[in-house]
Amino acid sequence: MSDNDFQPLDSGKVPRFAGPSTFMRLPSAQASEVDVALIGIPFDSGTTNRTGARHGPREIRNQSSLVRRVHHVTGVSPFDIVRAADCGDAPVNPLNLDESLELIRGFFADVRQAGAMPLTAGGDHLISLPILRALAKDAPVGLMHFDAHSDTYDAFFGSRYNHGTPFRRAVEEGLLDPQRVVQIGIRGAISDASNYDFARANGIRIIFIEEFVDRGADAVMDEACAIVG
Amino acid sequence: MSDNDFQPLDSGKVPRFAGPSTFMRLPSAQASEVDVALIGIPFDSGTTNRTGARHGPREIRNQSSLVRRVHHVTGVSPFDIVRAADCGDAPVNPLNLDESLELIRGFFADVRQAGAMPLTAGGDHLISLPILRALAKDAPVGLMHFDAHSDTYDAFFGSRYNHGTPFRRAVEEGLLDPQRVVQIGIRGAISDASNYDFARANGIRIIFIEEFVDRGADAVMDEACAIVG
Amino acid sequence: MSDNDFQPLDSGKVPRFAGPSTFMRLPSAQASEVDVALIGIPFDSGTTNRTGARHGPREIRNQSSLVRRVHHVTGVSPFDIVRAADCGDAPVNPLNLDESLELIRGFFADVRQAGAMPLTAGGDHLISLPILRALAKDAPVGLMHFDAHSDTYDAFFGSRYNHGTPFRRAVEEGLLDPQRVVQIGIRGAISDASNYDFARANGIRIIFIEEFVDRGADAVMDEACAIVG
Amino acid sequence: MSDNDFQPLDSGKVPRFAGPSTFMRLPSAQASEVDVALIGIPFDSGTTNRTGARHGPREIRNQSSLVRRVHHVTGVSPFDIVRAADCGDAPVNPLNLDESLELIRGFFADVRQAGAMPLTAGGDHLISLPILRALAKDAPVGLMHFDAHSDTYDAFFGSRYNHGTPFRRAVEEGLLDPQRVVQIGIRGAISDASNYDFARANGIRIIFIEEFVDRGADAVMDEACAIVG
Amino acid sequence: MSDNDFQPLDSGKVPRFAGPSTFMRLPSAQASEVDVALIGIPFDSGTTNRTGARHGPREIRNQSSLVRRVHHVTGVSPFDIVRAADCGDAPVNPLNLDESLELIRGFFADVRQAGAMPLTAGGDHLISLPILRALAKDAPVGLMHFDAHSDTYDAFFGSRYNHGTPFRRAVEEGLLDPQRVVQIGIRGAISDASNYDFARANGIRIIFIEEFVDRGADAVMDEACAIVG
Amino acid sequence: MSDNDFQPLDSGKVPRFAGPSTFMRLPSAQASEVDVALIGIPFDSGTTNRTGARHGPREIRNQSSLVRRVHHVTGVSPFDIVRAADCGDAPVNPLNLDESLELIRGFFADVRQAGAMPLTAGGDHLISLPILRALAKDAPVGLMHFDAHSDTYDAFFGSRYNHGTPFRRAVEEGLLDPQRVVQIGIRGAISDASNYDFARANGIRIIFIEEFVDRGADAVMDEACAIVG
Repeated sequence: MSDNDFQPLDSGKVPRFAGPSTFMRLPSAQASEVDVALIGIPFDSGTTNRTGARHGPREIRNQSSLVRRVHHVTGVSPFDIVRAADCGDAPVNPLNLDESLELIRGFFADVRQAGAMPLTAGGDHLISLPILRALAKDAPVGLMHFDAHSDTYDAFFGSRYNHGTPFRRAVEEGLLDPQRVVQIGIRGAISDASNYDFARANGIRIIFIEEFVDRGADAVMDEACAIVG
Repeated sequence: MSDNDFQPLDSGKVPRFAGPSTFMRLPSAQASEVDVALIGIPFDSGTTNRTGARHGPREIRNQSSLVRRVHHVTGVSPFDIVRAADCGDAPVNPLNLDESLELIRGFFADVRQAGAMPLTAGGDHLISLPILRALAKDAPVGLMHFDAHSDTYDAFFGSRYNHGTPFRRAVEEGLLDPQRVVQIGIRGAISDASNYDFARANGIRIIFIEEFVDRGADAVMDEACAIVG
Repeated sequence: MSDNDFQPLDSGKVPRFAGPSTFMRLPSAQASEVDVALIGIPFDSGTTNRTGARHGPREIRNQSSLVRRVHHVTGVSPFDIVRAADCGDAPVNPLNLDESLELIRGFFADVRQAGAMPLTAGGDHLISLPILRALAKDAPVGLMHFDAHSDTYDAFFGSRYNHGTPFRRAVEEGLLDPQRVVQIGIRGAISDASNYDFARANGIRIIFIEEFVDRGADAVMDEACAIVG
Repeated sequence: MSDNDFQPLDSGKVPRFAGPSTFMRLPSAQASEVDVALIGIPFDSGTTNRTGARHGPREIRNQSSLVRRVHHVTGVSPFDIVRAADCGDAPVNPLNLDESLELIRGFFADVRQAGAMPLTAGGDHLISLPILRALAKDAPVGLMHFDAHSDTYDAFFGSRYNHGTPFRRAVEEGLLDPQRVVQIGIRGAISDASNYDFARANGIRIIFIEEFVDRGADAVMDEACAIVG
Repeated sequence: MSDNDFQPLDSGKVPRFAGPSTFMRLPSAQASEVDVALIGIPFDSGTTNRTGARHGPREIRNQSSLVRRVHHVTGVSPFDIVRAADCGDAPVNPLNLDESLELIRGFFADVRQAGAMPLTAGGDHLISLPILRALAKDAPVGLMHFDAHSDTYDAFFGSRYNHGTPFRRAVEEGLLDPQRVVQIGIRGAISDASNYDFARANGIRIIFIEEFVDRGADAVMDEACAIVG
Repeated sequence: MSDNDFQPLDSGKVPRFAGPSTFMRLPSAQASEVDVALIGIPFDSGTTNRTGARHGPREIRNQSSLVRRVHHVTGVSPFDIVRAADCGDAPVNPLNLDESLELIRGFFADVRQAGAMPLTAGGDHLISLPILRALAKDAPVGLMHFDAHSDTYDAFFGSRYNHGTPFRRAVEEGLLDPQRVVQIGIRGAISDASNYDFARANGIRIIFIEEFVDRGADAVMDEACAIVG
């Protein structure tokens, strides 16, 4: 056992069905107290079809009560290496998408200011944009993106801010360096044959699931790490 | 059987699990062709907690395949009295609440223009506002409102347009004559003891569920009809 | 709004789907800080058929996010009258029924010592026994018990401690004054025609659901209050 | 406890989740051994919309594991008064409605021959017809029928044998004496205003749910018993 | 975008939860208007165990609202290549299997006459037989069949027409050329060791799932195409 | 078809949804009548988090109605080779873990005495311990164990008998020869990096899922058979 006080509740002493429903049964704490801040973003206002991701953080916390401490192959416990805690939910306004984006950005700016690395549970994919606005405001960052879709559409329903557009906006706003972005596992059917044009024109590397299966995880991850740098 | 061509599919000839999934297995038609226009409003952008009512119209259509033609006591079939059809869904923009309100209003203005009486399946309660804007733009109307809540809040999250505010807005906009509004069955706990102040100050009659149970449906409905006029 | 700091999160500012999953969205606190301590007992080791009540406290917390502040008829908010908070779960040992009873008893003895009144969400019905052991150890108490069953069996499977026996044990241990116990709404079929003999021999008043429906809630509650004193 | 060996498993010795899944945890036996034969008819070929009742007998057996021995008000256990057992399922052919009707009739003829009174769990409502063919072949019987529908339609889809027609067929075949038939609780909307004509023309007494609520259970049951004789 | 008017509703303009519930959000049309006719067959009368496939067409339509236009690897939209529309459900009689087979056959004969290629959602597997009767009445056809079972049984419950027999009947009726039939992925346990005798004796090629996994999709599909011709 | 009378009900004569709900639709019989005794153990008192496995035997019986007689590749029916029957549930006491272990042990001792080979459906993993106590009391046995976890923990909540400890107890009690034990597919995260120390120190061979995937089923099973002997 580690000297690190930020440990999950011991499942041999407090049952997994008991105690506070925090991420991975970790303590609640301020971002300033930890290395890794686990954060929920209960937001799905960017969704064009089936909502419900707003309930994601609470339900992920509930299910994360099953997480154990140590990986069976490596024998390593991440909870011994870093101080991690549940730092609560970012604020949102379920009736105002724009205000929600700004509230989320502000929350993550504070987390960054506190010196913690955020680990976030959403929420629909648009949450990536305010997070990047908070974390990458000084210089563009790279991105390793696992998804079925590229999320670089331009707009739906006349709106440029939705769950299909965050990474296009992030490139446009100078938050992402597209040369250092790799999207892995893309496999969803698309609305228009030109849907990948923006990504490709800007140098984003798209690895379809077919290529992933063909080359294998090791080769793909080697390339992905090289891209992100 | 009526001369009226707008009849549900005959469940002794086309099974209820087959055929188009329209409201009550009625034909699809334009509002101009019918007396009563059955309309869906797949909208839940006014919801502050649990969304999903956007899927309401489709699922109500599906379940309405169980509806039969004739009431067992009266022996009357509404489908013999009026021409009724499924007139489709009002347009919405799931990413823009204000635009949705205007799209819905415009759709119902057309229905009114066509001379049909709309019968609507939502959708969250905010849909009442754009409907009233279309139907009552010339003169305020009365309202018989069955609900657990009064929906005359002023605002949530700084927003004056949400599922708790439609009837306050309608009174303020001159769409409802509060002296001719009755709310029946109100029983939900409330956020603030002053929540009914607006309704009462404007002369809206609130009949709590306790009064309804105590007096009985007949007496309450007599009073309600007198109020609405 | 009250001076009382122990208020539920404002649902017009923090959505009901966000924030910590505490009872009624109240703050977490120590029993010593409050008048009313909301407590979970995640325990179902006393169950003879279908378990799962161990998950009750967490799920009740989750669903209690829908609770509002003010009663619609009385206009009263209990949160203005008492300081109430979520004081967490009583400790249990899911592999040891006897130890769990003692752990729960100790937890409630501390709550009593702290001066708070507990309001508890279980858990199976056996939890009433260790609570009574903590609260009634100095003098027997009365009980107003709403249930489908009397829970005064003697034993199942050779065990005297299970979800069908807590009130028999409590009478035997001098924790309940049976003359001041009333059981309301009893309606479950029973295993043996002699199942009410203990209750009746000891003066417990059983009000079957048939009597409740026949006399009405007001008359029954008048009698019940007179019995409990 | 009775001398009667046909008792449910004792739930204080064999848990309700264990042991054979028979009706009410009774023994399995031949109809000739018992007074009351509990029988399943896994048949839904007469259904015009939603099937699934074929799974009814198995699932009713499973859920009936919750049934207890003694009624809480009367103190009577039916298992002390009669010998009752699970006598299995009637045979059916899921691909041949007509053959199923004959198979069911034959099974109930054997039960009648054995001298047992059948208590049956279906299955869709058409099962009443082959049961009546077995039990009432010598003389028409009376019927107390609790349902939402009269089930005296003539035909659907050109078929005279389906879940909406059993009691019309039974009257036509001389199995039911319509003067001694009462249908209680009828409330379902109907396909055609003439749907009750057959019942009324033949003297069947229909008590709509509205009348039932208005007069109360006692008065309705007095009349019903007088009708059936 | 294509000149082809038969396009799915644009999901960036009409949300996927709105609008008519047709296959893939395509227009409704007559078979004579299109190249590909999407058809539902709400039929499960051939099922020997768990029914429910009668609800398949409606639910598949509902879920197909998620289908997008363009394949992510090929960049091809089938909706640009062919005119496709929802041509409704084939008629069925839920109380008469034989009549249903004839109704379905007639519907597909009309589709064939109209010159459209049917693409069908069932329904249990027996639906293949009336489709083949309509499409292959002039000359036997080949078949590429993906399934867990061979569906070449002779009879169940004395019935030669059920969900386990369509392809045996089709060979016997001269609708299928067994030398040009390949069954891929067969893996279900069987009732009798002789169950594949008919298929093998008639030259049908059965590729068990074990062979499929061992050889890979490409090799199997090469062989399958060669067989079907 | 075999001479063996212990055959599943013929699904072409008795539908899978009908008849007694026994394992694989086999007859009920005594262990002394069969080669293989199918047994349920409705026990989950050893569970530290989510219970419910007590309902496993009944639900497995229900679902096993789908099992067919013959394997599609080998053409072999196990029911032709051995006499197998449903021999019921082992007795348990849901309120007393220790007594349950002894009741289960006694039941399996009787099965062994009767000369039948038990095939068991649980129930949580602790059931392996009383089974081994019955079957291996004279000499330690080998074990081929497929699982996500090693189940060789020492204790949880101060209890040495729970679903995480059966194989450690079995080694300590001389029921298992650890040199002949192989655990295949282990992949669950663990509570402590020392969790495999006991298994490894005693010579148990652990094959992680990563090794299984890397080497393939054939190579792993060859090794596993060699270990177990």
